[in-house]
Formats: sequence, C-alpha cells, structure tokens
Amino acid sequence: MQVQAEDFFFSGLHLRGNTSNAVGSRVTPVFAAQLPGLNTLGISMVRIDYAPWGLNPPHTHPRATEVLTVLEGTLQVGFVTSNPDNRHITKVLQKGDVFVFPVGLVHYQRNVGNGNAVVIAALSSQNPGAITIANAVFGANPPIASDILARAFQVDKSVVDQLQAKF
Amino acid sequence: MQVQAEDFFFSGLHLRGNTSNAVGSRVTPVFAAQLPGLNTLGISMVRIDYAPWGLNPPHTHPRATEVLTVLEGTLQVGFVTSNPDNRHITKVLQKGDVFVFPVGLVHYQRNVGNGNAVVIAALSSQNPGAITIANAVFGANPPIASDILARAFQVDKSVVDQLQAKF
Amino acid sequence: MQVQAEDFFFSGLHLRGNTSNAVGSRVTPVFAAQLPGLNTLGISMVRIDYAPWGLNPPHTHPRATEVLTVLEGTLQVGFVTSNPDNRHITKVLQKGDVFVFPVGLVHYQRNVGNGNAVVIAALSSQNPGAITIANAVFGANPPIASDILARAFQVDKSVVDQLQAKF
Amino acid sequence: MQVQAEDFFFSGLHLRGNTSNAVGSRVTPVFAAQLPGLNTLGISMVRIDYAPWGLNPPHTHPRATEVLTVLEGTLQVGFVTSNPDNRHITKVLQKGDVFVFPVGLVHYQRNVGNGNAVVIAALSSQNPGAITIANAVFGANPPIASDILARAFQVDKSVVDQLQAKF
Amino acid sequence: MQVQAEDFFFSGLHLRGNTSNAVGSRVTPVFAAQLPGLNTLGISMVRIDYAPWGLNPPHTHPRATEVLTVLEGTLQVGFVTSNPDNRHITKVLQKGDVFVFPVGLVHYQRNVGNGNAVVIAALSSQNPGAITIANAVFGANPPIASDILARAFQVDKSVVDQLQAKF
Amino acid sequence: MQVQAEDFFFSGLHLRGNTSNAVGSRVTPVFAAQLPGLNTLGISMVRIDYAPWGLNPPHTHPRATEVLTVLEGTLQVGFVTSNPDNRHITKVLQKGDVFVFPVGLVHYQRNVGNGNAVVIAALSSQNPGAITIANAVFGANPPIASDILARAFQVDKSVVDQLQAKF
Repeated sequence: MQVQAEDFFFSGLHLRGNTSNAVGSRVTPVFAAQLPGLNTLGISMVRIDYAPWGLNPPHTHPRATEVLTVLEGTLQVGFVTSNPDNRHITKVLQKGDVFVFPVGLVHYQRNVGNGNAVVIAALSSQNPGAITIANAVFGANPPIASDILARAFQVDKSVVDQLQAKF
Repeated sequence: MQVQAEDFFFSGLHLRGNTSNAVGSRVTPVFAAQLPGLNTLGISMVRIDYAPWGLNPPHTHPRATEVLTVLEGTLQVGFVTSNPDNRHITKVLQKGDVFVFPVGLVHYQRNVGNGNAVVIAALSSQNPGAITIANAVFGANPPIASDILARAFQVDKSVVDQLQAKF
Repeated sequence: MQVQAEDFFFSGLHLRGNTSNAVGSRVTPVFAAQLPGLNTLGISMVRIDYAPWGLNPPHTHPRATEVLTVLEGTLQVGFVTSNPDNRHITKVLQKGDVFVFPVGLVHYQRNVGNGNAVVIAALSSQNPGAITIANAVFGANPPIASDILARAFQVDKSVVDQLQAKF
Repeated sequence: MQVQAEDFFFSGLHLRGNTSNAVGSRVTPVFAAQLPGLNTLGISMVRIDYAPWGLNPPHTHPRATEVLTVLEGTLQVGFVTSNPDNRHITKVLQKGDVFVFPVGLVHYQRNVGNGNAVVIAALSSQNPGAITIANAVFGANPPIASDILARAFQVDKSVVDQLQAKF
Repeated sequence: MQVQAEDFFFSGLHLRGNTSNAVGSRVTPVFAAQLPGLNTLGISMVRIDYAPWGLNPPHTHPRATEVLTVLEGTLQVGFVTSNPDNRHITKVLQKGDVFVFPVGLVHYQRNVGNGNAVVIAALSSQNPGAITIANAVFGANPPIASDILARAFQVDKSVVDQLQAKF
Repeated sequence: MQVQAEDFFFSGLHLRGNTSNAVGSRVTPVFAAQLPGLNTLGISMVRIDYAPWGLNPPHTHPRATEVLTVLEGTLQVGFVTSNPDNRHITKVLQKGDVFVFPVGLVHYQRNVGNGNAVVIAALSSQNPGAITIANAVFGANPPIASDILARAFQVDKSVVDQLQAKF
C-alpha cells in the first residue's frame, strides 16, 4: 500500500488545550495513535498548556525520555532521581529554555508565571505512555487495597480513603 | 585484562533480607554494581523478602521489565496500566507462580500469607533502577513544593505536610 | 560525579536565528554537544527560522527521524522515498501542523507565506547529524572529482564547476 | 483486546522437574510460548533440576545472556570463551550464589553435591532458544555427514558413528 | 510453518550485472525482499559491477552501514562527513581492499582501472534502502519545485531545469 | 581527533588463506580489531578459504548472523535449529550462491568440489566472536572434566580422553 502525505501529517498543535480541570493543564499528544507515520520510528511530540499556576502533575513515561522547550510563560520543572537518593533536580524555565527528563523518572511542570504557559515536548518513542502518579496509585481501577497504600505512604487508612475518593 | 570467574560471580542470595523496617520487605539487588560481569548484558536479578503482611510498596523500574517467581509464601501482586485507563491488574501468587511487570509500570507485592515470603526476580537491564513512588514523590530531596503535591493529589497541604514528614 | 539541573538545561530556543545567508534559513541545534544531559537518551531538538521564501535545503539526518511542528508561518515541506520510486511526498503546513521525515530520507522545508516562519523539531538521536546535500556533494573538502559529479548528475563538467564554485 | 492478569501469569515453577533421563537434569522454561505477557519485553525465566551428579550439558542460548542463582545443592558451573583462547571459566556454586553466562557462549552446570540441586535462571530474551551441543552436532536431523564430524573432532568415523547413534 | 533451506538461499551473485546504462554500474541486491531468511536479522549483501570508468553515483543508505571488498579492478571510493565539515574521505582501492561507509553518509565508488571492476558489499540491515542523490533530488516524482533546487544549489533555474530533464 | 581514510580501510582480502591445517580451511577476519572504523557500526566481513575437502568446522557466532556468498568452488553448507527439533538445514552452493546462518546457530561449510573454494561472508556485529564447537568443548583451557563430557556425549571417558587429546 502506498504511503501518502496525510500519513505523515497531524494538525492542531497550535490550539490551546482546555485547562479547565483539577490540575489546570492539558497535554495534546501526537503519538503513533494520532499520527500513524510515526510507527516504528521511535519519536513523538506533545503540546502542553498550563493555566496560571496550572500543574502537569508528577508522572512518568515508561518507554521514553522527554525533552521540552517553553514557548510561552514561566515554568518550574523538576524530576527525581532513582532510589536511594531521590534527588530532586529542579529549575525555573523561561521562554526558549529547554529541559530533559530522562526515561522513566518522575517529573512535573508547574506554571509559576502570571499568565498562561505553553510548551512543545518530544519523546523518544512513538508510543511513550504516561503514568500520572496520583491516578495510577490512588485512582487505579479496581482500587489498590487501602491498607497497601496506607503502609506505602505511612498514613492512616482514612487519609488514603480521602485520597482515593478524589480519583 | 583477562576476566576471571569471580567477575561473573555473586554470593549471598540465600540470605534472608532484614525486613525490620517500615514496609516489612527487603530487596537484595544483584545489578552490575554488585556483579560487574553483568555489564552491557542487559539482565540482572534480585531477591525480595517479605515479613508477614510485608509490602514491597508501589514502585517502577525506569529501564526494565521484571519477572518474578515465588519461592516461599503467598503474595498479592499488581501493576497499573498507563493513562487513561489505569487498570489495576492483580493476582494472588503461590509458591512456584511467575508474574511479569512490564517496563516502567507502577507495581507492588504484598505478603498475604501467614509466614514469610520470598521471591527471586529478574530484570531486563544490568542497571534497572528503582523508584519507590512514596519516596520519590513525598521524600524527594530537596522536597517537591507542598502546593504542587496538594494539587496533584487533590488534598489539603496539611495532608501533604503529613506525608512529607514521613519520608 | 553528581548531576546538576544545569546538565539537563539549555537556554535560547526563543531567539530568532539569523537568516541572512544564501538560503534564508537557520537551524539552532540542541544536541548532546549543546545539552550534555541528552547523552545516551536518544532524542534531541532544534529550532529552525525561515526568512520569507527562506529554504532549509534538501538534507538528510544519517541517524534520526525528525518530527516538526510549525510555530509561525506557512511552510511547504517534502521528503523523497528511496530508490527506485523516489516518490516526492509533499504538503503545505500551517501553524500547529506536524510532519514526520523518516530516518535518512532527503527532506526540505520552504517558507511559502508572506512573513517569517519558525518551527520546533525533534530528532530521534542525541547526535543525529545533518548532511546538506548540496554542500556534501558540491562542497566536499577536498572536492569530489568533477567528472564523477558530471556523470552522476548527467551534465557537462562546466555545470559541475559552476556548482562547485558556489560551495 | 484487553489484557488480563492471566496473560502475565504462569504457574508451576515450584515443581521438581523429572530428571530421569540420560543427563539427570530437567529445564522447565517460562518463555513467551509459555507466558504470552513476556512478548517483546526481552526477558524470561527457567527452573532447572539436577539429580545427584546430574548435568545440564554444554549448550548455548543463541539470543540471550543467562544469570542463575542456586536454590538448593552444590553445582559446578562453567563457560568457555570464544576463539582463539577457549578459556574455561569455572566455579563451584553453593546455595545463594549467582553466576552469569554471557550471550552465546557454551556453558554447563553439574550437580557436585550429594543431593538434588535446583536453580532459578533468567535470560535476556523472551525467546532465548537453547542449543544442546551434543544434540545439535551429533543428533541433527537429518544427520550431519559423519566425515564432517570426524574431521571437525579429529577422530575416526567409527567414533562419530558411535556418537551419532546415541542422539 | 517449517523453514526450508530455500528460505535462506539466493542464487546469482556470480553473474555480471548489466552496466549498459548512464552511470556504467549495476547493483544486484540480496535484501530481505530477495532472500526472505534475512528478515529481522539485520544484515544483507549486494554485488556491484562497474564498466571501465563506471560510477556508482553518490548515494546514501538510510538504515545501514556498508562494508565492501574489491573482487576485481581498481576503484576510487569516497564518503563525505556530516555538516559542518563535509570532509571528503577518499581512497583508491585494489583487489582485496576493504572499505567502510558509515550509516547514512553520502558515498560513491568509481572504476578507475582499465577493465571491469566488481565488489561484494554487506549492509547492516535486511532492508537498508538506497537513495541515489541525483535521482532523489532532481528526479523525484512529482518533481521538487525548481526554485527550491535553484536556491539549494545556488544556480539559475535553467540549470535546474537541465538537471531535472535528465532524471 | 580527526578520522582519516586509513581508519576505514583494510587490505589483503584477495590473499588466499593458508589451509595447511587439520581442517583444511582458513578464516581471514576483518572485525573492529582489524578495521577500527567498524566500531559501533554493527557489521564486519571475513574471507574463508577451503582446500579440497576442507572444512570450516561446526561453530557459532555468539553475537552475529552471517550471510555468505561463494566466490569460487562448491560448498556444502548447513546449520542446525535450536532444541527440541535440531533440524539440519543444508544445501550445496555453487559460485554466486548466497546463504544465511541465523545468529547463534551451529553451522559449517565444507568444500565438496574438486578444487579450492573461497567465500566472502558478512556478520551483523563489528565484534561477532566465533566458537569452534570442538575446540570450545574438547579443547577448553583448563579442560572441561572428562566425566561431564562423557555424560553429555554419552560415550566412555576413554572416547572423551581421545577427543580431548586432539585439541
């Protein structure tokens, strides 16, 4: 079957994502599911929008490194290294700054400027996956047993119940 | 420089790990840092011990799939798929059962039997890394700003403060 | 040696590249040479600026696929498939459009709007390399023998001499 | 199609393999054929049982490194490096010892204790393959010409005939 | 389905390729399309024939390194490094000489002896692809706009028209 | 440090290898050790010479697939598939025939013509390694215990002693 230009094309990354949600951010993915021409090629792209104080909450990509550049706004970004150090590497980024989140590490971005913020990011897989920590841990379906989470996070079950109720 | 048998050898995986800690489990790693002959070969091994009701709390390996087999005891194991489904795939394992945790996904094991439990697990990297979610998120050093975590987990800062105090 | 936030950081991708050159475009690379934290991670980023009618002339990346999104302006983009078909896959892109150039294929972008154009692109290697066809073929140092090029391009040596004089 | 917990699960690695055979050992594989959830994930596991003086005879894995830990008994293990040195790297292992057999090298294990021996091993492919040297060389089907083997092993054809008769 | 010897077999690489064409050379490929047993194995082979002064014109392989040995004749070979240096690495080869063309770089061979020349080359992919620069650039179908090429090669459109007319 | 043409060059593959040895064949390798420019590029080349009835005895390459073409003579070639089938895939090759030996499988070539035979082969690694089965098994240094080999090959120790005496 012959490929066509449409197979390598996706439209809409200029559109502001809807950030009217609990975290005040929105990821618009351009993965192989959205752009079939990426298949087997080991790369993909996203746009992320942040309302003022919007947060792209702590998450990991199980199959990709991410590199991001700020198009608009001021963002605090960070990632945490593996056990046992759990070092928090963090930086405030301005327009035009670029930052790398190595494969599989927990990372986040938060809008710390006055207006909206926008980034374009690239990922080293056509199907990188994304695991929002809070959703995976407290919003899994069916839920992870609350006594597991109580012990893992060393809090009362009531706190876990409270957390699970949100997701 | 000539290799020697010692370069491919590690001793001590029969020893019960000390589970006198907050989660009641202990991982004994045999990675390239412990067994230099694994270097570049894309594989490693661990032993995990669990006290009764001990937990290997939710964590990820940023660079490896894990496959484990139960040597002793009864374990509930689970992993959570990526966004948006966050499906919780879980199973109770008995002695001789084998289970797979695909690369980068959040997973855990909990001793649900009456006695101790022991597993041998293998990982698809000589340097797989491990990220304990609670430690990376609430115990990062320096800490992740508490308002980031409050928003990510949709709880009051006081709850986050409580969580951060534990790690 | 401990990593620092600076190791994962690069600044300046908001700055318009100087397009006062023969082709009217400028690539600002963020490869491992510019951003050491990208090392071994298999990804990198560039900004490309185009003056009106500016051209990023036909080139290849020997070790990477490229995916690009238009930040500003209107671009005609294209790539050519391998022998024997040499199909020219081409498309006019507007702001927010995304396009993929598969690894190693000859591709180009041309500003076909009235004003400047800007893209952010990502590449599937921390060290993708770039081979501008005209420079590699007619500007190699020392030059490729002119009778080789005359035969390859099936023109008189005088045409080749004319071409080589430009590079 | 949705994955289920059963896709990531295999049962039976606690069962002693039947070692009533010519070499006195038995491999119980958990490869992608037995555990479909291993597919594409680059790892697998086996249990190996050894009767007293049982032997896992010289063999190679064409697509995997192996790392093994002794659960029970005392084993002599060894591998041989490539041409031209053919160095024999060997070691006697006790319970809890771990040893690595690099990808593609000829290796073996022999029970040198008084009782049974058991190991759990991991391999760096979901489909590692196994080539028992004696079977591949003297038991190929149809047979390798006996004059080839006589010359390769520098013995009379009668010796080769004797060897081929066994496999 | 069982494999057969025929699946791993190709015949005809001793036959002189027909060099009665504009460049005086002929590539006879043995890729996965010609030899299905190469599939997934990451290697392939070609024979190249050169009439006296025949040329294998400047081209790239988007997915492979090439290593070649001269069976007959005298060849000048060369490749050009990436931007910004565009260094021309060149050498005259005699029978029995071996030369490497690293993945994705523009390279060529030219018969500089009195008679025919023949090489056997190997490529590090079962499906390496080949992009003849002149054909991809001046013979793309549909054509690349002549003003793009005029600017890229810094010549009058009339020269480009002349070049495009040949391919 | 700047690369030079010499870094990508090796000379001497036209020279007949000395086949005055026990097996009547000779491999002339062009691996990264002989041709540094191959480093990291995942490919290499060899010439193999065979006296009449010469044999390249059963061997494996632990890190490479091999594809060969016959330059001169008539060769019987074969490889054996993995356990449990140990199928012997064999074919008589003439000049110009090409054959593939998949990664890690035991394979051999034997001159079955009247004169000398010559092949050029390529391997999918710059450092493929080679394990001659007879040497690795019966000629390891220090020797593999003769009772191991007696049991593996199911013959008397006296036969093993005889075999080990040759290597």
